[in-house]
Amino acid sequence: MSKEFLIIGERINATRKSINKAIEKRDTELISKEARKQVECGAVYVDVNAGTRVTTEAEDLVWLVRTVQEAVEAPCCIDSPNPEAVRQALQAHKGRAIVNSITAEQSRLEGILPLVEQFESDVVGLLMGEGSPPTSASERLRIAEKIVRRLEAESVGLGRLYFDPGVYSVATDGGAGKAVLETLRELKSSYPEAKLICGVSNVSFGLPSRKLLNRTFLSMLIEAGLDGAIIDPTDVGIRSTLYASRALCGVDGFCTDYIMAYREGKLE
Amino acid sequence: MSKEFLIIGERINATRKSINKAIEKRDTELISKEARKQVECGAVYVDVNAGTRVTTEAEDLVWLVRTVQEAVEAPCCIDSPNPEAVRQALQAHKGRAIVNSITAEQSRLEGILPLVEQFESDVVGLLMGEGSPPTSASERLRIAEKIVRRLEAESVGLGRLYFDPGVYSVATDGGAGKAVLETLRELKSSYPEAKLICGVSNVSFGLPSRKLLNRTFLSMLIEAGLDGAIIDPTDVGIRSTLYASRALCGVDGFCTDYIMAYREGKLE
Repeated sequence: MSKEFLIIGERINATRKSINKAIEKRDTELISKEARKQVECGAVYVDVNAGTRVTTEAEDLVWLVRTVQEAVEAPCCIDSPNPEAVRQALQAHKGRAIVNSITAEQSRLEGILPLVEQFESDVVGLLMGEGSPPTSASERLRIAEKIVRRLEAESVGLGRLYFDPGVYSVATDGGAGKAVLETLRELKSSYPEAKLICGVSNVSFGLPSRKLLNRTFLSMLIEAGLDGAIIDPTDVGIRSTLYASRALCGVDGFCTDYIMAYREGKLE
Repeated sequence: MSKEFLIIGERINATRKSINKAIEKRDTELISKEARKQVECGAVYVDVNAGTRVTTEAEDLVWLVRTVQEAVEAPCCIDSPNPEAVRQALQAHKGRAIVNSITAEQSRLEGILPLVEQFESDVVGLLMGEGSPPTSASERLRIAEKIVRRLEAESVGLGRLYFDPGVYSVATDGGAGKAVLETLRELKSSYPEAKLICGVSNVSFGLPSRKLLNRTFLSMLIEAGLDGAIIDPTDVGIRSTLYASRALCGVDGFCTDYIMAYREGKLE
């Protein structure tokens, strides 16, 4: 996979039973293997999330960051809303991490933005405000503006920002997919310096054949300008869609990556 | 499949060896089976194309139309640039056919448009002019305008028009996919009465894993506003993508069709 598309490998997440157990037991081998497998499949960042382990999250994240970075060269995406856990994880991290995430919520900005500045990390700006999660594109764009204004006030360049529009299920709101696509197109034109990423899998929550919906939505997101995604890169279906989408959108020059992936037997 | 998306089943085409042979031998059983199979899989129209059989095209098309209409209730999409073949096929056809296609070429307008008027059929407007095939969206939109002006002059309502932007391979022009998507979005906003369809499979010509590219492109086309497509509805991959895309774009209310297709084992 060309490095132009930023895959953030989502597999090391304590919501998964096997990962939770591995964290519990400090199973270095399992976590190393998960990290290596994802990087081999094209992950540029390895997401680490221990959010369900409330009382030990900080020390768990530190252990995860160290274990992942001993196994692979790739930097981590530190996935937590908890400032103390983020601080300790950033301290343990070598190189430039992404912090996932700030929002337009005051507490999150005040807790996490100073750490982004102190450790010179990149940062995900998740489009959530103080109230209930936004549904329309226009609500999301107002939140984006708040985050941008705050970053500019702190002199954090937009080149360090990854917008995540926040994806919700089409099972409960038929317009949820379209609103995200519209948001991406508007962000691309208003803030060309910032990058656009998102977690894809929420879109299919509550529906059957989730992988089919996830890969289909990914192709639409890429067409709308997505620069990266938090996905499982070991899933051959979603990876095939990724290659195909980039070939179809003309961002994979002469379909080189696509043809190479085919030759290497990576497409299904 | 909800009738809202117009599937035109593409399988009865003499470029396929088995179909050519069946036409040659007047094999009613094989053609009937192909028609039934496609309608069972959601085809609203059955495309009939005998274009490779130059010397007998008209009589072949007449036989195909009669054979298909004896097997299924669905109307035909009469796929030929040959006015005499179209005339005879329309004469044999019961109910309202689609003629595929007129272009902005003078000879095609003069040869085929009078037949559309005489037989009160619907018509595909393929965005091709006198010169070489268009590459950009703006070239296509200029051609669309010419076709619309001509239809208006003949008092053929735009409700009877199906635009086909004309799809070419991304193997030779990386921008070919994006140009089609942009064309669809512009046509939708300029001519909301007309419908948008296209043949999908040309996009992958010359590339490996064509089905992967075709289904991925279909999801982007649907997001851009496509109302129907000339596809093989018996291909479970492309049909699954169709259901998923409509659920994701909010045009399949409460994901009803999607969930039903899952329950009937129609998704892969």
